[in-house]
Amino acid sequence: MQRIAYFGPAGTFTEAALVQMEAAGTVRDTVERIPAASPPAALDLVRNGQAEMACVPIESSVEGPVVPTLDALARGERLQIIAETELVIAFTVAARPGTSLEDVRTIAAYPVAAAQVSSWLSENLGHARIVPAASNAAAADDVAANRADAAVSTHLAARQRSLQILADEVADVEGARTSFVLVTKPGPPPPRTGRDRTSIVLGLPNEPGALAKAMNEFALRGIDLSRIQSRPTRTAMGTYRFYLDCIGHIEDSAVGEALKALRRGGGEVRFLGSWPTVVSGGCPPPDDTAVSAWLERLRRGDRTL
Amino acid sequence: MQRIAYFGPAGTFTEAALVQMEAAGTVRDTVERIPAASPPAALDLVRNGQAEMACVPIESSVEGPVVPTLDALARGERLQIIAETELVIAFTVAARPGTSLEDVRTIAAYPVAAAQVSSWLSENLGHARIVPAASNAAAADDVAANRADAAVSTHLAARQRSLQILADEVADVEGARTSFVLVTKPGPPPPRTGRDRTSIVLGLPNEPGALAKAMNEFALRGIDLSRIQSRPTRTAMGTYRFYLDCIGHIEDSAVGEALKALRRGGGEVRFLGSWPTVVSGGCPPPDDTAVSAWLERLRRGDRTL
Repeated sequence: MQRIAYFGPAGTFTEAALVQMEAAGTVRDTVERIPAASPPAALDLVRNGQAEMACVPIESSVEGPVVPTLDALARGERLQIIAETELVIAFTVAARPGTSLEDVRTIAAYPVAAAQVSSWLSENLGHARIVPAASNAAAADDVAANRADAAVSTHLAARQRSLQILADEVADVEGARTSFVLVTKPGPPPPRTGRDRTSIVLGLPNEPGALAKAMNEFALRGIDLSRIQSRPTRTAMGTYRFYLDCIGHIEDSAVGEALKALRRGGGEVRFLGSWPTVVSGGCPPPDDTAVSAWLERLRRGDRTL
Repeated sequence: MQRIAYFGPAGTFTEAALVQMEAAGTVRDTVERIPAASPPAALDLVRNGQAEMACVPIESSVEGPVVPTLDALARGERLQIIAETELVIAFTVAARPGTSLEDVRTIAAYPVAAAQVSSWLSENLGHARIVPAASNAAAADDVAANRADAAVSTHLAARQRSLQILADEVADVEGARTSFVLVTKPGPPPPRTGRDRTSIVLGLPNEPGALAKAMNEFALRGIDLSRIQSRPTRTAMGTYRFYLDCIGHIEDSAVGEALKALRRGGGEVRFLGSWPTVVSGGCPPPDDTAVSAWLERLRRGDRTL
């Protein structure tokens, strides 16, 4: 039995991401899911041993990086990302069984969600009044408790509360996606697959050229960066923190050498993990194992070369 | 009379930021404020001529960059940032006149705001039930319309609705700040002040080294970067967009030369403006006017050197 914390309450997109990872076999054991009030709170449950893992959102195609998640990974006891999954963000409109769209007079919705389905609502439920809800999951609770006729919620939350689904995959703009990661205490990363991603937090002095020098350590070794984001630390004036993701695994010699060079250069380097990516884009770094072997053979005086 | 669009409705933190810029003399003329439903919608009002300027949030110390604002600046007709201001994000608890804290049974709050003041609420209004509101401003409307006893809102929204302020500067974590920018159609940037910031959007092919090369153009010229953020464009596979802010003004020769070099290098460079910054951190780029003059004199054969 594995206890996995997630950004709750029950029925959030984060729980749906965790369900997807369980279905994909990413988590092997039976799972007890523990809701937490925020992504940082979910990570703290891993740090204090109340959960073995945490599932948290890390990047949205619309809103960008989930900065509270990244900040919580950058601070406190180090944790490691071991897997990721991506969800298409679309909503489910649900009601108590026996309700039809025409019956709906009030619709509970988390304001952020309401904004993402407002065209759909005015076309299909123009006669209904929106009742703000505290979260996507709470909107489903409001319907179950008879405080609204229908809810803009998630498919999972609707099913959990035995609501009837009136419409599925509702979104004004198609293709919004969010990626979620599974996080544990530090340990050996999952084996290299050839389609991996490595994430680090880099602390650098706020000097012209410090970042360019760090970037060069990746460029020199042919490593592709897939994310870079600066954060003023505000604790130490003039110090910046960078969240960097690169294509490749810490077991790839190019990636390993780049991390060593960053560390040697005096930057603060926090390793956040290497894991098989599901997000497309970028090429794996050139594997110089063969080249290293060639050099080794030259050094050993191999006459066959 | 200047028509200025802002991320509304009336009483949002964005309107408070605009009021602050008016008070500081950043906007000289009398102002007609036009609420828009989102930051991108406010920018579109400038593009289609319904407003001369727009005031939009661009970065939060807690949530990071406001990606929908940055994305809307990166796409469509080019716009330019001409000023910025920073607000401390703290809430106001307000009620209808004659209400005291003890009378409050229900409190309207935007769920995101409720999360930011939950400790304060449980200490000071532990007996009250939270009623979700559609926005900070809508929470004040709910109180004015007698749908809740008190609201977690902004100082401005409470004053606009003639509510009585029960508590001001309410925040569980002190020091949260958001910066807002004033945006217009392209034109000559405000004059160089020596404490300026320049913002660009850089389109680069997803090749190892492309970003490092671009960073070097700044590093070589001693220019400090104050923000860097990658965004997958998703339209063209393997193409990335970077939001870069640097310390300095486009009139600074170092900044001008760096932009020229980026343009020469084949990257897509969109200039988002140079403006006097209010946010601390970073040093202005070395002014090489003197050095350029020295070189010019050598070239002219000046014998006094």
